Amino acid sequence: MRRDHVRDLLRQVADGSLDAGAALDALAFEPAESLGFATIDHHRSLRQGFPEVVYGAGKTPAQIVEIGERIAGRGDALLVTRLSGDAATVLANALPGIQLNALGRTAYLPGREPPLPGTGTVAVVTAGTSDLPVAEEAAVTLDALGNCAARVTDVGVAGIHRVLAHREELTTAAVVIVIAGMDGALPSVVGGLVSAPVIAVPTSVGYGASFSGLAPLLTMLNSCAAGVTVVNIDNGFGAAVAASRITHG
Amino acid sequence: MRRDHVRDLLRQVADGSLDAGAALDALAFEPAESLGFATIDHHRSLRQGFPEVVYGAGKTPAQIVEIGERIAGRGDALLVTRLSGDAATVLANALPGIQLNALGRTAYLPGREPPLPGTGTVAVVTAGTSDLPVAEEAAVTLDALGNCAARVTDVGVAGIHRVLAHREELTTAAVVIVIAGMDGALPSVVGGLVSAPVIAVPTSVGYGASFSGLAPLLTMLNSCAAGVTVVNIDNGFGAAVAASRITHG
Amino acid sequence: MRRDHVRDLLRQVADGSLDAGAALDALAFEPAESLGFATIDHHRSLRQGFPEVVYGAGKTPAQIVEIGERIAGRGDALLVTRLSGDAATVLANALPGIQLNALGRTAYLPGREPPLPGTGTVAVVTAGTSDLPVAEEAAVTLDALGNCAARVTDVGVAGIHRVLAHREELTTAAVVIVIAGMDGALPSVVGGLVSAPVIAVPTSVGYGASFSGLAPLLTMLNSCAAGVTVVNIDNGFGAAVAASRITHG
Amino acid sequence: MRRDHVRDLLRQVADGSLDAGAALDALAFEPAESLGFATIDHHRSLRQGFPEVVYGAGKTPAQIVEIGERIAGRGDALLVTRLSGDAATVLANALPGIQLNALGRTAYLPGREPPLPGTGTVAVVTAGTSDLPVAEEAAVTLDALGNCAARVTDVGVAGIHRVLAHREELTTAAVVIVIAGMDGALPSVVGGLVSAPVIAVPTSVGYGASFSGLAPLLTMLNSCAAGVTVVNIDNGFGAAVAASRITHG
Amino acid sequence: MRRDHVRDLLRQVADGSLDAGAALDALAFEPAESLGFATIDHHRSLRQGFPEVVYGAGKTPAQIVEIGERIAGRGDALLVTRLSGDAATVLANALPGIQLNALGRTAYLPGREPPLPGTGTVAVVTAGTSDLPVAEEAAVTLDALGNCAARVTDVGVAGIHRVLAHREELTTAAVVIVIAGMDGALPSVVGGLVSAPVIAVPTSVGYGASFSGLAPLLTMLNSCAAGVTVVNIDNGFGAAVAASRITHG
Amino acid sequence: MRRDHVRDLLRQVADGSLDAGAALDALAFEPAESLGFATIDHHRSLRQGFPEVVYGAGKTPAQIVEIGERIAGRGDALLVTRLSGDAATVLANALPGIQLNALGRTAYLPGREPPLPGTGTVAVVTAGTSDLPVAEEAAVTLDALGNCAARVTDVGVAGIHRVLAHREELTTAAVVIVIAGMDGALPSVVGGLVSAPVIAVPTSVGYGASFSGLAPLLTMLNSCAAGVTVVNIDNGFGAAVAASRITHG
Amino acid sequence: MRRDHVRDLLRQVADGSLDAGAALDALAFEPAESLGFATIDHHRSLRQGFPEVVYGAGKTPAQIVEIGERIAGRGDALLVTRLSGDAATVLANALPGIQLNALGRTAYLPGREPPLPGTGTVAVVTAGTSDLPVAEEAAVTLDALGNCAARVTDVGVAGIHRVLAHREELTTAAVVIVIAGMDGALPSVVGGLVSAPVIAVPTSVGYGASFSGLAPLLTMLNSCAAGVTVVNIDNGFGAAVAASRITHG
Amino acid sequence: MRRDHVRDLLRQVADGSLDAGAALDALAFEPAESLGFATIDHHRSLRQGFPEVVYGAGKTPAQIVEIGERIAGRGDALLVTRLSGDAATVLANALPGIQLNALGRTAYLPGREPPLPGTGTVAVVTAGTSDLPVAEEAAVTLDALGNCAARVTDVGVAGIHRVLAHREELTTAAVVIVIAGMDGALPSVVGGLVSAPVIAVPTSVGYGASFSGLAPLLTMLNSCAAGVTVVNIDNGFGAAVAASRITHG
Repeated sequence: MRRDHVRDLLRQVADGSLDAGAALDALAFEPAESLGFATIDHHRSLRQGFPEVVYGAGKTPAQIVEIGERIAGRGDALLVTRLSGDAATVLANALPGIQLNALGRTAYLPGREPPLPGTGTVAVVTAGTSDLPVAEEAAVTLDALGNCAARVTDVGVAGIHRVLAHREELTTAAVVIVIAGMDGALPSVVGGLVSAPVIAVPTSVGYGASFSGLAPLLTMLNSCAAGVTVVNIDNGFGAAVAASRITHG
Repeated sequence: MRRDHVRDLLRQVADGSLDAGAALDALAFEPAESLGFATIDHHRSLRQGFPEVVYGAGKTPAQIVEIGERIAGRGDALLVTRLSGDAATVLANALPGIQLNALGRTAYLPGREPPLPGTGTVAVVTAGTSDLPVAEEAAVTLDALGNCAARVTDVGVAGIHRVLAHREELTTAAVVIVIAGMDGALPSVVGGLVSAPVIAVPTSVGYGASFSGLAPLLTMLNSCAAGVTVVNIDNGFGAAVAASRITHG
Repeated sequence: MRRDHVRDLLRQVADGSLDAGAALDALAFEPAESLGFATIDHHRSLRQGFPEVVYGAGKTPAQIVEIGERIAGRGDALLVTRLSGDAATVLANALPGIQLNALGRTAYLPGREPPLPGTGTVAVVTAGTSDLPVAEEAAVTLDALGNCAARVTDVGVAGIHRVLAHREELTTAAVVIVIAGMDGALPSVVGGLVSAPVIAVPTSVGYGASFSGLAPLLTMLNSCAAGVTVVNIDNGFGAAVAASRITHG
Repeated sequence: MRRDHVRDLLRQVADGSLDAGAALDALAFEPAESLGFATIDHHRSLRQGFPEVVYGAGKTPAQIVEIGERIAGRGDALLVTRLSGDAATVLANALPGIQLNALGRTAYLPGREPPLPGTGTVAVVTAGTSDLPVAEEAAVTLDALGNCAARVTDVGVAGIHRVLAHREELTTAAVVIVIAGMDGALPSVVGGLVSAPVIAVPTSVGYGASFSGLAPLLTMLNSCAAGVTVVNIDNGFGAAVAASRITHG
Repeated sequence: MRRDHVRDLLRQVADGSLDAGAALDALAFEPAESLGFATIDHHRSLRQGFPEVVYGAGKTPAQIVEIGERIAGRGDALLVTRLSGDAATVLANALPGIQLNALGRTAYLPGREPPLPGTGTVAVVTAGTSDLPVAEEAAVTLDALGNCAARVTDVGVAGIHRVLAHREELTTAAVVIVIAGMDGALPSVVGGLVSAPVIAVPTSVGYGASFSGLAPLLTMLNSCAAGVTVVNIDNGFGAAVAASRITHG
Repeated sequence: MRRDHVRDLLRQVADGSLDAGAALDALAFEPAESLGFATIDHHRSLRQGFPEVVYGAGKTPAQIVEIGERIAGRGDALLVTRLSGDAATVLANALPGIQLNALGRTAYLPGREPPLPGTGTVAVVTAGTSDLPVAEEAAVTLDALGNCAARVTDVGVAGIHRVLAHREELTTAAVVIVIAGMDGALPSVVGGLVSAPVIAVPTSVGYGASFSGLAPLLTMLNSCAAGVTVVNIDNGFGAAVAASRITHG
Repeated sequence: MRRDHVRDLLRQVADGSLDAGAALDALAFEPAESLGFATIDHHRSLRQGFPEVVYGAGKTPAQIVEIGERIAGRGDALLVTRLSGDAATVLANALPGIQLNALGRTAYLPGREPPLPGTGTVAVVTAGTSDLPVAEEAAVTLDALGNCAARVTDVGVAGIHRVLAHREELTTAAVVIVIAGMDGALPSVVGGLVSAPVIAVPTSVGYGASFSGLAPLLTMLNSCAAGVTVVNIDNGFGAAVAASRITHG
Repeated sequence: MRRDHVRDLLRQVADGSLDAGAALDALAFEPAESLGFATIDHHRSLRQGFPEVVYGAGKTPAQIVEIGERIAGRGDALLVTRLSGDAATVLANALPGIQLNALGRTAYLPGREPPLPGTGTVAVVTAGTSDLPVAEEAAVTLDALGNCAARVTDVGVAGIHRVLAHREELTTAAVVIVIAGMDGALPSVVGGLVSAPVIAVPTSVGYGASFSGLAPLLTMLNSCAAGVTVVNIDNGFGAAVAASRITHG
């Protein structure tokens, strides 16, 4: 619900064409559709700049399909993340044409209107091959939100020349998403090379004392390159949304 | 050292006017000045878009003064963070005219040239009065980096109307920095209200199970508002640099 | 065993109609029935206001059935929580008419007498769809203990208007149970909206740094809304019992 | 701001006696008074059932006095918690007649009107002498909120007869607050003895592996007595507010 | 190797009947038999008072059988703990007559000579039904080491009369092993009731914030009953050995 | 209150010479004396085999003196642990003749009757000089409880011959208390050398990743020497009480 | 790429035979071969002294085969660690002659040229049978890097004579790798016996409070034997590389 | 005690010139001198290759002086670490000529004979100025153990050219000690540049989520550069001893 819509409502109350109680209902309830087990926020796009996204973990395939059909039925773009293999199969049957990404565990069905394009390229940099699923989740999300993503793959700091070789791509990007597990050191090096915003994503890849991603998470929060920001472990989706908030500023 | 300077160097090597060894030295060593106990990175501004900043914790007043005089002596802007009261006194004597901020524990001496101005306003939002020192550190840093900061103070989510009352300021900001201790819930609410980038800063304020800021840190990393990014506990400086990377994009 | 029963026993000892040793036995042993692997506390209802509940995790289906039959055999209400699918099947065969709730993993067989009714409505509020299993466990327990539960579903703080839209239901409830994973921020907002007791339940839903519910647990313990109390992660049962202690006060 | 006041405002908008913009301002801004460094929520009492309380930690004496004078100046009751010795002295000078509690680190100045009385007694039970400061904070808060508090002191479970000796006081209380450090076992025993709501407060008292109260916090969250709820470490204030929410239901 | 045997060896060196190098070998190597993947310490019994016990976790069935046959082949008693179901089947085929305990996951084959009997009874007390597997491991171990075990089952502190009813058995035991998950409060109550040594065993049973037994572990380490000692989570074997060290003193 | 006293009371009820209510009071209340801020358990000795000990941390000097005078006034032995320097001075003035131990931070005033002597020697073994304060606390406590303590000092495992040199003292002790910080490895070696009970005490001595004693605590809980039990970090008092429970068995 | 190769390149730039841009490419890109999902660092051997090793966890069998074929196709040695059973089968089909080690989960195919031999023997010492998989990973890696490994198996400190019996092998080794789970105490004892470098490897073997290897990790970091260094939990590969860095010094 | 001395002893036993008991004493007791509160291991040098070093933390000045005088009195080198300012003053008075290092908190008095020289240079690399105290502790220790140390200061990875500029010094060192706080990323970059052994030292310098050095500790344990080993937080002494074990191999 756009702000001018709200202003209209209040004016209608002022000129008597709308009852105060009805206005209250309109203001509060309209944009959210209740399915009993879920409340879909159809107007999130207007408020936050991106459509409601379905987080697949902890939802049954049937729930995902029902939510997905409501969103797609309005012509809105549908993006599902953390999709299990089973749910993906069910969803693909229900919504033919939906684009599945097995590595990134996502499903995407474009809306009637294309997303508002962002400004500039978003570089998606990974330290190792094992970080690719998170990078895929980020890339699909970037695409769904109207951004142009550029991949830089497997350039961990133990071979520092590998990342230096990509300096050009890094320094020209509008935003750089850096995904790394194990020591999580790559964002510190990248953050020192570029002046653009750097969003760091720790991954749960690694030996024992990684503690499922706690180690790179702490590394990134303590980055000696100032101005690096961090999202949750394995949260490629969140990093992409953060980047898209910047490219759509 | 600007990129075109590097290109010039390589061309001089190509046309014989510069020896390969000398070029190597020029490339690698020049921008960093060694003081024995510290290596000052005078060219960081060219690489990262902001000047080298002195982190005061763990340095003696004498070390801070020596580093500060070198930076100021070149006409560069000098910003010191985490400055103890003792070091502040010594520094103010050595560099008259330096601007001290006791609450934010910073010292700032503008450079010969003003900083490159950023685009748009950066809102600095705090959940409670106890979060103010971190907000001050952020605000001083934003100012030093050429940004325009707007404060929104003491609007924790337990009085949700307080934050809603500031919706206008929040939705028009280019970037929103949200600083909160205790439950760290404010960034989730703000992240749901605005489409701009939201940078969350956990603070170490709170009762026992805050565990010196661990609680709001985890809250923010798990924010249900997508695209919120996080910096280290009490790190107002880092949040400001991250915001400035965005406003200078 | 009621207090007046105890007083009778002591009087019988005083007038010689009961031997001291027998009285000791009666006092200590009677209310608990031993099955070898378990000691059933048939009189818990008299002491704590609710019947003994069977915690299904870590018990074999056979053990659950045996305990269940003893409780049901006395005409007491039987409530089993954390029931595996296998155990549910076995239990349903043994005790036809028992009510299974697959989502909440509970089984409930009403007793001969209905539970003592509680005063007022207990609102059960969830932040997201993934929190529903915990809400189901709470709702079944509330029902078994004689309470009236009202659901408010999927109203996380990232869409703050969703929770505000339910203000009426929240402010009229006698107790509010708020269930949330990820950032666990919802109880702070609800706690600021209502004057009734608020019981917060963290859930283990979420990305990596949720650490299986540790993040929302800490958030809730540090709630900036005063007077919010917290139960264990995913403990919908405990929250319901706590609410029922209040509605039966 | 009472609900009927809001309804009046909306009616004024409907009959044209109030402009929509002015109504918006009235609704959103009025109840909070801005001091620059703090936003006082004068209407919290109407919303949450208790007045705004000043959390003293992290505020300067001058800030506490300024906030306190504003609250007291309106005739509202003033309660300050976590008050340092220095701030207490300054505050006592500024507001003669304010009641200081050194052990509980509180200051209390009654308002023009007495607090709404709660129903029933709140028992405040401590496991050991070292838990007394937290009990004092709880007791002062209970008093300020219109409750009747009854102390049961030093009845840790290692001498189980000590707590059993107080069974009468415990079973007749409307709410029981149980404060314990070290093993935090007392709430489990009390929770098994009474049918009233039990609010557990872990304290930071204890040997090394107490980890500043983490041990009793975890104990209480895992209480085998169903329906025990928990507040933050050392948070006697929060427990008292939670109890008062119940007694004012 | 008994101490007098060592003295004999040294005397043989002194009178020339044994070469110094051979004595060195005899002293160092003899009691341990190498299987390549394992070094069996046949003389542990002489040193520590109990035979070498095979820890089954992390060993293949074949390795367990090979070690077991060597020990049994010498007529020594064989005790295996943490035995998987698969390994149990293989072991039972290889060593007919071995006693399997499925709940406790142990296998036991008595040696040619009975174990040295301990003095007094060891009470094995559990707080809940889910703690039984750990109690079984303890009981089998106690039996193998020559002790007399007495079970007290399902007497958690939420029903304090249940544990008080067993006061007699508890106060007459030579040692009390108390096994509890969830809040781990039972050892504090028992430790306050008896003067005998109390060994507490935390179990990994419980809701989320039990953190796989961390909660009761910390509870027990912080027990307010002085002189309670603690073993590792789920370590019924270790508790039994500790008890047996006491009963064989 | 001895068990036979209780039996007498019950007989008096049976023969009418005592009213049931008076018996109830006698049973429950008599042994605990209330000071308002503390409840002294004068009969703990009969129940647990050692007198009530005053834990000095978190108590004011005045409180300690008041409790101490009550205990000493009855002729009971008085032991205070975790005594600050200030409190020690005040206590020594109030109770001349009390024995202060500055290193162990204890005060001890023998009772009218000597403690019941324990059987055998208790070895108190330390890994390093920095562990001595904990050893002193243990030794004073052992002495107060009627035990004979033997010190073995500074025999850490990095010089394994140092501990082997004390084999004789270790193998002849009735109980061995092993105190170690840093790696906490000593109890594993000692536990492998002796058949007596071994009680391990982790200390908070060490470099950063000791985490204030967490490292040796975990080491000791995971000891590869079966039957080693553990008490809280720096808890020399608890280890001594545990040892005394064994020597008085 | 050897250093002299780089010097040649720069000289070619100086004499005009190579264009500056081409030189830049040659320097940065050549040694790394991009497969899209991975960037193979063929020249790592020149820089770090050992060939690129493939970490199998988190890679699909197909990815492992493709990387493996590229490396083997150049005649370089191929070592794969953390290889799942499935991937091992696929890899063995693709590269006949590759040596699989099921216990250590490695695959190794020697290169055209043997590895540069290291100086001296590397002792690989394990505390228990369950530590063998990590020891195998270390031993295969040592072999692949040209080292001579000597095994000392199952010599935990609870039987201190077992490790003392191997003193000769330990004191003559050039480097000692000590692998231990549970209490992780063995490196402290070994570190006190030898003057050679000691590399400690914690393993995830053990009861609950091992916390998947955290306990021995902390033990080893706090070793009272000075100069012991530590690698990640279960990281036999890393320990072997560290040892090989020493033997090739 | 050298190995040949032991062989002599055993031969004397064999030829009857020495009694077995006397030999036992000689073997076990001689090299350790007992001071009551400490056991000095005068022969550690023969066993481990470096003299006993006095860890000053947790020892009184008087204890340090007494131990120091014993060691110096034998003409052995004396090295004290973690020396408080007070203890340094007392020690300097007692042992004139001792070399104090205030930044590194060490004291060093050379022995009669110079230390055995190590082979090659040990590079001591720091990421920031705040890491210098740890570097000083390492450098003093390296010197005391006969090594040649070379400093490389303030070359954190956020300015990657700073570390690359020192490539020459790094690649020619026999061992590289890398000291870093905050993100602890430097060892990963250095480990990728050199083939020599790399020993990483995390420091406790940094913002909140460094958790006193836990963050860089985990980073280093998870280093993506294979073969990096790690010592305890702030443990410059341990790193130096580890390096010296290598240079004296």
